[in-house]
Amino acid sequence: MQSYVIFRDIAIILVAAKLCGILARKVKAPQVVGEIVAGLLIGPCVLGWVGQSDFISQMAEIGVIILMFSAGLETNIKDLLKTGPAAFAIACAGVLVPLAGGTLLYMAFYGAAPAGSDEFYKAVFTGTILTATSVSITVQALREMGHLKGKIGTTIVSAAVIDDVIGIIVLTFVIGLKTPDTNISRVIINTVLFFAVSGVGGFIAYKLFKLFDSKYPHTRRIPILGLALCLFMAYAAETFFGIADITGAYVAGIILCSIHDSEYIAQKMDINSYMIFGPLFFASIGLKTNIDSFDMSILAFSVAFVLVGIAAKIIGCGLAAKLCRNSWIDSAKIGVGMMARGEVALIVSQKGLAVGMLSPVYFTSVILLIIVSSILSPVILKFLYSKSDA
Amino acid sequence: MQSYVIFRDIAIILVAAKLCGILARKVKAPQVVGEIVAGLLIGPCVLGWVGQSDFISQMAEIGVIILMFSAGLETNIKDLLKTGPAAFAIACAGVLVPLAGGTLLYMAFYGAAPAGSDEFYKAVFTGTILTATSVSITVQALREMGHLKGKIGTTIVSAAVIDDVIGIIVLTFVIGLKTPDTNISRVIINTVLFFAVSGVGGFIAYKLFKLFDSKYPHTRRIPILGLALCLFMAYAAETFFGIADITGAYVAGIILCSIHDSEYIAQKMDINSYMIFGPLFFASIGLKTNIDSFDMSILAFSVAFVLVGIAAKIIGCGLAAKLCRNSWIDSAKIGVGMMARGEVALIVSQKGLAVGMLSPVYFTSVILLIIVSSILSPVILKFLYSKSDA
Repeated sequence: MQSYVIFRDIAIILVAAKLCGILARKVKAPQVVGEIVAGLLIGPCVLGWVGQSDFISQMAEIGVIILMFSAGLETNIKDLLKTGPAAFAIACAGVLVPLAGGTLLYMAFYGAAPAGSDEFYKAVFTGTILTATSVSITVQALREMGHLKGKIGTTIVSAAVIDDVIGIIVLTFVIGLKTPDTNISRVIINTVLFFAVSGVGGFIAYKLFKLFDSKYPHTRRIPILGLALCLFMAYAAETFFGIADITGAYVAGIILCSIHDSEYIAQKMDINSYMIFGPLFFASIGLKTNIDSFDMSILAFSVAFVLVGIAAKIIGCGLAAKLCRNSWIDSAKIGVGMMARGEVALIVSQKGLAVGMLSPVYFTSVILLIIVSSILSPVILKFLYSKSDA
Repeated sequence: MQSYVIFRDIAIILVAAKLCGILARKVKAPQVVGEIVAGLLIGPCVLGWVGQSDFISQMAEIGVIILMFSAGLETNIKDLLKTGPAAFAIACAGVLVPLAGGTLLYMAFYGAAPAGSDEFYKAVFTGTILTATSVSITVQALREMGHLKGKIGTTIVSAAVIDDVIGIIVLTFVIGLKTPDTNISRVIINTVLFFAVSGVGGFIAYKLFKLFDSKYPHTRRIPILGLALCLFMAYAAETFFGIADITGAYVAGIILCSIHDSEYIAQKMDINSYMIFGPLFFASIGLKTNIDSFDMSILAFSVAFVLVGIAAKIIGCGLAAKLCRNSWIDSAKIGVGMMARGEVALIVSQKGLAVGMLSPVYFTSVILLIIVSSILSPVILKFLYSKSDA
């Protein structure tokens, strides 16, 4: 019986996401915001028509993988190399400023604690939660506006990917502070290994696809094998190297971005994405939100947490971008593009809960940050582009 | 962690299905046969690389729904009406002949039993398992050859859908013989209700889509809402009327088959299908097969069961087609097109097990029938078409 309910759930999500997406566009907001709001509306928060299920979560996972793969595919490799150093600087600032901001925020609310005390670790962990950018929403918003391929788009996406890697190192380091058997050097070695193996394996894959591509251009096998490469790299990144699956998918896209049929692959991916996986992913953000867990007692902290979370990314990444000789408005775009948070923040929180560095009550704050930042980021981004295009 | 394993499983299935599909085409067999064989190879039977999981099953379910929706979309409504009476006659023969054949086969092996005895019910149930045609494989084979839209293709698909409905009535009736509280009249009423509600609801949906289509031709919302309609009808058919989900999906396709953008929807569905859902569905047939359950002791019965299962459909449907004034070769195509069995046969068996009308040992025979018939049907079909095209 279970499977029929899935049909209904998917049908409801598709209709709601499309309608809200159209409405969002009517009020000049990006469609992706409409899709997130659709999830909130039909989810347990408001109407309760669709619940969070394993199947929807897994489809959403595939959705975000396909999204990052497409972002990789649409990368211009020259732009990537040119923006590389700036992206690295932006990512570093985008980790350090929120880390400091969150730590100070916690201390401002609950008093400064001496280094090494339990309270100190809790403060540092609050900062750690703020480090992880969720780029998928920004990617979609940029694509809608036709700015994903530009210099700014490439900078944001590659900075977010580097941010992911640095974020994992910081998380491991912070947890390692309390549980000394965590091996920080192993994390760094794994990261280096991942990029080394991807480099070598990617070069071979690139050559094979290029050969394939010239022998059988525009055949179905090219996008199908491309998708398989993407899924395999997402799996390998998580399983063998402890790197986020979306990073693996993005790197797979980069590997294939300069073969002749990369646009052809991207086009097929795009159809799969907008027909089913994309709406499921964006709506699932709203679906995951459960208003029951909102606790009034920490409302003040939550509001401050959201403000600091947003401001720290905008200021940190924005200033770093400005230092890398971007204009003020482009720096603002980069800062805003980096401010969205997603499920990685929840995963980090879960980890903190497991090692006793976070109380469950702060989940409320994290969920609030995810909703507010993922709705505001594309809206402000669109506004900034309309200013600079004018 | 679970979700990363899914990425790996999907990647393996996509690569194996594509490679075996290409190989199948090289030896002039339909690609879909290659995909089924791929599932057998990577599944628990041979290599054991990929196991059957809930997620893969559910993706496969969506795959078969999309397939039947596409078949509906590609229907020519005039052909459907013209072939309707013939399809009905073929479906009836396709249920009755296998029902009688299976009953007699059981009695031939285990002795005739008086009506009303336990052995008699087991014999009748063996026949009931043989009634359900699985049309999805034939649909794919016909589409590959470009013959899905023709008169024969339409006849086969609509006969298979009617076969489904009659099969459910027979199953309910047979089970009702033993458990007298099953309400056979309710099944018939539900079936009539389903087609009545689909007729009225479908007409409204058709008008809405037509309006939409003329206002926003070739926009993403058309295929997205079409897919939502298909999923919803599959859900409603099972949940509210006890009709197979694939019948609901097929009817949804019929509803939209004469709007202006039906081809546009079919094209988007097709890409979703061949990129991910299709290979997962066909490979999952092989994945579900577990050689451990093969039991040598009933080998002779199994072989006879497969032969009777195949012969009964070919002879029953083929003769009915001939009586409806098709040529001999077209009648043969229809008979062969109706002979494939799929998961419905397994579901029926499960039901028989639950009410004590089937021993678990006969699952072996059912699985063998599914594999042999779903590999042979497209191969013979292709051969017959090559004869008649020549």
